[in-house]
Amino acid sequence: MKLALDAMGGDNAPSEIVKGAIDAVKKYPCEIVLVGDKNKILETLSDEPNFESLPITIKHTDEVIGMDEHPADAVRNKKNSSIVVATQLVKDGECDAVLSAGSTGAAVTAAQLILKRIHGIGRPTIATPIPTPDGVALLLDSGANVDSKPEHLVQSGIMGALYVEHVLGKANPRVGLLNIGEEETKGNEQAKETYQIFKNMTTINFAGNAEGRDIPTGKFDVIVCDGFVGNVVLKFAEGLAHTIFKLIKEGIEEGGVPVKLAALLLAPTLKELAKKLDASEYGGAPLLGVNGYCIISHGSSDAKSICNAIRVANEYVGGNVLEHIKNALEKEDFFKDSNLAKRD
Amino acid sequence: MKLALDAMGGDNAPSEIVKGAIDAVKKYPCEIVLVGDKNKILETLSDEPNFESLPITIKHTDEVIGMDEHPADAVRNKKNSSIVVATQLVKDGECDAVLSAGSTGAAVTAAQLILKRIHGIGRPTIATPIPTPDGVALLLDSGANVDSKPEHLVQSGIMGALYVEHVLGKANPRVGLLNIGEEETKGNEQAKETYQIFKNMTTINFAGNAEGRDIPTGKFDVIVCDGFVGNVVLKFAEGLAHTIFKLIKEGIEEGGVPVKLAALLLAPTLKELAKKLDASEYGGAPLLGVNGYCIISHGSSDAKSICNAIRVANEYVGGNVLEHIKNALEKEDFFKDSNLAKRD
Repeated sequence: MKLALDAMGGDNAPSEIVKGAIDAVKKYPCEIVLVGDKNKILETLSDEPNFESLPITIKHTDEVIGMDEHPADAVRNKKNSSIVVATQLVKDGECDAVLSAGSTGAAVTAAQLILKRIHGIGRPTIATPIPTPDGVALLLDSGANVDSKPEHLVQSGIMGALYVEHVLGKANPRVGLLNIGEEETKGNEQAKETYQIFKNMTTINFAGNAEGRDIPTGKFDVIVCDGFVGNVVLKFAEGLAHTIFKLIKEGIEEGGVPVKLAALLLAPTLKELAKKLDASEYGGAPLLGVNGYCIISHGSSDAKSICNAIRVANEYVGGNVLEHIKNALEKEDFFKDSNLAKRD
Repeated sequence: MKLALDAMGGDNAPSEIVKGAIDAVKKYPCEIVLVGDKNKILETLSDEPNFESLPITIKHTDEVIGMDEHPADAVRNKKNSSIVVATQLVKDGECDAVLSAGSTGAAVTAAQLILKRIHGIGRPTIATPIPTPDGVALLLDSGANVDSKPEHLVQSGIMGALYVEHVLGKANPRVGLLNIGEEETKGNEQAKETYQIFKNMTTINFAGNAEGRDIPTGKFDVIVCDGFVGNVVLKFAEGLAHTIFKLIKEGIEEGGVPVKLAALLLAPTLKELAKKLDASEYGGAPLLGVNGYCIISHGSSDAKSICNAIRVANEYVGGNVLEHIKNALEKEDFFKDSNLAKRD
């Protein structure tokens, strides 16, 4: 796999991005094009002995899209920005996938404008893997779209199921619709209408409504929701983890010697747990529904997250998910027979 | 305060409800009417020595509304159910407040039908206190309504701020609108419209958009959202806490003697933390917007949660919040001048 990596995107760019790339080419069969400011990239890259022998090249760009810029305006006006150029490399067939930890809005917009949507998909969707005790649950959409129509949620469900099957390797994944109760009469209009479409489908394994409490338990493999709710849930989890760890740390600092000793003894167990629940282990979320492989990483990504995201990109491309999605949309009578695919 | 307590509502009714009542009358200045099956209530109550001298009476009812019944149908058809009779006691002026851990839908419906809405309020809203490191944040609506209109969210904000001020004792509470970004242009249509109303108001301290990560940190005192999102967030927190504790327990069980010893030493610190984050410490969520004091408890409430919820009821009635809400709606030019209060 040849990856276009936005070296300038994210809070720790470019140094952590470059370090992640160096780690990844040593671990996974891949070739990386670092897209961004050549001199800044070389500051980190040249620290690596024999860096010129690594399968890493640089594509120089002199513009960057900031986190606070309006995504559509920025993508249209900054043709030489790292995210736009990286996405264009995929469009031109020079790379297989694009990965960015920069502005999510800009990455989604660049993918939509340059790679375009897959025919039959109304809106692309960000699919975030949520750690569960036995693996992951895919939450989508986790922030690309708000005020989604029921057919957008249904399309998310189909794409999410194919991703889980062909990339995460779980056959017949259980698809749940995020809602406020188990019964099909529960929820807002969006959820109630979506339920009625899902329950008549035969191409996915619809397992009913998922409640908030089902997200982290692993009861469902794919959890479908509007991007507004998905984004709130993901950021809430972040805030909660941060608050809990802060309180534990304070408790240990205020405790006496036995408490400090205990913390030391318990550290490996807690570290193992933290690793299990650590979103950075998964590193990247695929943007499903665009006509190309695009992976979005968290703005706070460090080298480890980026390296993991490159592994995700590798598996994503290897899973040939795009072709599976296109085939599924062709086969799904529901989409052929109805106006769902047309009503964007 | 004289409380009508639904003795039959909740997973652990009536025994834990009755035990909670016994504890509460010993701790707080209150009088309790236990509403439910007299014989079943007496099974627990008569275990208490001299129970006849406690300020607890029984109002016998022979119907119960189950968790799986359709709320509106059940409330209309079961006139002699514990929740309907308890709510009627408030309507008739025989009690000051009603508290139930039974079906939330039934409790909300009974309150709406019997107590009616406050004039000017389109929809009542459940205000759930979320533990934060330094106190609580009030999340509302946490499940009474979905597909809310912007004016419903604004009304929630006003009522939530008055609750925090007069019951939780925090002056000038910071009101946040739950959204997917800080900027006022972010979010779905509902959030964008609500922001525009909030930002022009002078009677509340609107502090801008709150993101998911801000919910547990205490950055806002009141967080306003649609009941769909609020419900998903609360249940997600429940599921996450459950999953994390399960994993910690497994890790400790699988660990050797040092890990088990460490867990023992760390137990008081973790217990202190769990207490800080334990929702049952707060025990009850007020249903704001109905013309009477109504408190809703979690279905899984035990005696401790019920006792705490009775404390909440005491403070809620003592804070005279209903009068403050009515006065605020009178004074709020925004509501007088616009059609917001009329458009239910």
